[in-house]
Amino acid sequence: MSGLNTQVAGIAELSAIDGGIGAPAGFRSAGVHCGIKKAADALDLTVIAADRTAAAAGIFTTNLAVAAPVIVSRRHLAETGGRARAVVVNSGCANACTGDGGLSNAEGMAEETARALGCPRHEVLVASTGVIGVALPMDRVVTGIQFAARTLARGKGSETARAIMTTDPFPKEHAVSVQTSRGAFVVGGTAKGSGMIEPNMATMLGFLTTDAKVSAARLHQALVTSARDTFNAITVDGECSTNDCLIALASGASGVEIDDDTLPLLTAGMLEVSRTLALGIVRGGEGATKVIEVTVRGASDDADARRVARTIANSPLVKTAVHGADPNWGRIVAAAGRSGVAFDVTRADVRVGGVLLFENGMPHDEAAPDAGKHLQGTDVRIEMSLGTGGSGSATIWTCDLSAEYVRINGEYRT
Amino acid sequence: MSGLNTQVAGIAELSAIDGGIGAPAGFRSAGVHCGIKKAADALDLTVIAADRTAAAAGIFTTNLAVAAPVIVSRRHLAETGGRARAVVVNSGCANACTGDGGLSNAEGMAEETARALGCPRHEVLVASTGVIGVALPMDRVVTGIQFAARTLARGKGSETARAIMTTDPFPKEHAVSVQTSRGAFVVGGTAKGSGMIEPNMATMLGFLTTDAKVSAARLHQALVTSARDTFNAITVDGECSTNDCLIALASGASGVEIDDDTLPLLTAGMLEVSRTLALGIVRGGEGATKVIEVTVRGASDDADARRVARTIANSPLVKTAVHGADPNWGRIVAAAGRSGVAFDVTRADVRVGGVLLFENGMPHDEAAPDAGKHLQGTDVRIEMSLGTGGSGSATIWTCDLSAEYVRINGEYRT
Repeated sequence: MSGLNTQVAGIAELSAIDGGIGAPAGFRSAGVHCGIKKAADALDLTVIAADRTAAAAGIFTTNLAVAAPVIVSRRHLAETGGRARAVVVNSGCANACTGDGGLSNAEGMAEETARALGCPRHEVLVASTGVIGVALPMDRVVTGIQFAARTLARGKGSETARAIMTTDPFPKEHAVSVQTSRGAFVVGGTAKGSGMIEPNMATMLGFLTTDAKVSAARLHQALVTSARDTFNAITVDGECSTNDCLIALASGASGVEIDDDTLPLLTAGMLEVSRTLALGIVRGGEGATKVIEVTVRGASDDADARRVARTIANSPLVKTAVHGADPNWGRIVAAAGRSGVAFDVTRADVRVGGVLLFENGMPHDEAAPDAGKHLQGTDVRIEMSLGTGGSGSATIWTCDLSAEYVRINGEYRT
Repeated sequence: MSGLNTQVAGIAELSAIDGGIGAPAGFRSAGVHCGIKKAADALDLTVIAADRTAAAAGIFTTNLAVAAPVIVSRRHLAETGGRARAVVVNSGCANACTGDGGLSNAEGMAEETARALGCPRHEVLVASTGVIGVALPMDRVVTGIQFAARTLARGKGSETARAIMTTDPFPKEHAVSVQTSRGAFVVGGTAKGSGMIEPNMATMLGFLTTDAKVSAARLHQALVTSARDTFNAITVDGECSTNDCLIALASGASGVEIDDDTLPLLTAGMLEVSRTLALGIVRGGEGATKVIEVTVRGASDDADARRVARTIANSPLVKTAVHGADPNWGRIVAAAGRSGVAFDVTRADVRVGGVLLFENGMPHDEAAPDAGKHLQGTDVRIEMSLGTGGSGSATIWTCDLSAEYVRINGEYRT
């Protein structure tokens, strides 16, 4: 697996470090069990707090059935012009399709967090994930927020990573230190999947922290750029949730100032962290046994290439074939053919694991056993050239479709 | 299950009869085993022949990776202006992505059939279904065509129904007699699914015969109209195949002339047969245990309603929830929200089995057990109003997503 796009990363000196969301200076966090999830040892609420008001940016779901916490977070970011003191997140209940009561509850989460931290209500952002259409148990949530606020500490990033999980098989966190001529800054992050992952815009819950000193506008720019080829280039099942959001906070505590010259360094750090988290979401996709990297070339532009790559990545027939280690290039060609993008089947080619299986309208079935061997691994590469002579290209990451996906989603609420 | 749209049918007197594709006068057919499929008792080739040149019409896949038989059938229909003597169909091999050799083979199938029947080559239409990218074993196909042509007979419609199956769990055929003031005519048909069913245009292989006397233009009009709310209103997995086609032949042998006044009667007959076949495809969808009828109302127009209904019908999360008999209306709302069509979640409502589960932005979870009971049946109704006050509506039929779908498609070629 070559991994997500790291072109920008080439210009900065990055080193992976421990600590996830808690690694950058100027943040404390805590994860608690307040009783939204049934299991007594399951963390289900977290607060990520900056020591002082931080620059903040967010990217949110494009789903029109938008959840209450997304409405509240968008509103608060608009009111402050990109400042926040904290993010409060619960898992186990999405607070979506919960009407006016749900909106009050999301505002209530912000209010309670603000009271505990001593900041204005609109400096708190809110996120929720879990079952749709169930009211939050606000008494438990309030107790949880109070408890989390009292136990905020540095070095507890992994509690946040666990507290935001739903059906995720493992927590996802990462952090990097970025060396610049003006000193080092740190970017940390955590994210949760793991179905309903289709990045029409945002894709899941993701949180990034940094101690770089940056304006809200530049932070937003870096967030959008780094998300494009990471969180926005993955799909598990083509679904786009009501609650998806990606939020970044910058404390400035490193003292390293981000101007137009150093913005690529911040972007590189955020890209690197996002890359690891996004691949973690795919690898931890519901029922996933393999990560599939779909690269499409030869499209008229990158957007067309992305559309074809996404159609292939979301094709149930391609995903089940990969699951069964069947080098069924015909399903790849068929998916490309229905994507709505021009392609020339007589000049197209398809490679699986680098093995050429289809070229100039004809199969190379003698190579199928080699491709089949590649498909038995856990990291699968599919490459397709559309044969139209264009220079557009794109890569999308997805996972295979297994019977376990059906089991998880057929039994989720029961 | 209220069944597919039968409004048009109300004006005609229809009675179901036996015989499928072979029921109308003026046709003979035969299905044979020529050796494309491995099992010695599996029929894999069929010829449907009119006694004299018939009026013909076809609807074909919109997939750009179009298979050789589709290219040939389109070409022949264009050359004849809508006349055909026969259709030759094989299963077990799609003859798609097979290059120039595949095109020669598809033409070869037409040629061999024409030679056996004594008609011009372009009066034979060709269809294939099965694995993509494999060359047809033409020696066996030729022997099969010769054998089929020698054994053509009336009353053998069920052989055709079986000879076109791939992973279909059961054959699908139906026929109706239509009483008119000028006498009766008959419409028969057969179809095969059962994955890769997404009617961007055509959806699968479907063949209709009638002994009504009708021009090619009117036959085409009746075919398009009857397909819209039947074959084009079903989806199994959102895939659109390289080979999909729907072909109609009219022998005229009943002597009942179809003019503009009686065209609705022909349409009604074709609609009724198509309705039964289309629902059969959904019920026989790969791994399907339930048929799901998704009706969307309150859209600004029917096209918008269809888009939402199709997004819900293709949502893996909705399909797995139905499979698990979970009345998870939240996933229905979320699917609608990402369909790209305007809707007002504060005025929308969702019903499952007629049970109101969501209204004015709020759940009615006290009703969930009743909806859950409905979902344990094999015929599931999902209704959604978008709450935007429009009068657009549409219904799409689909099936649930089971672990068996994954098994079938992960092991198809192995």
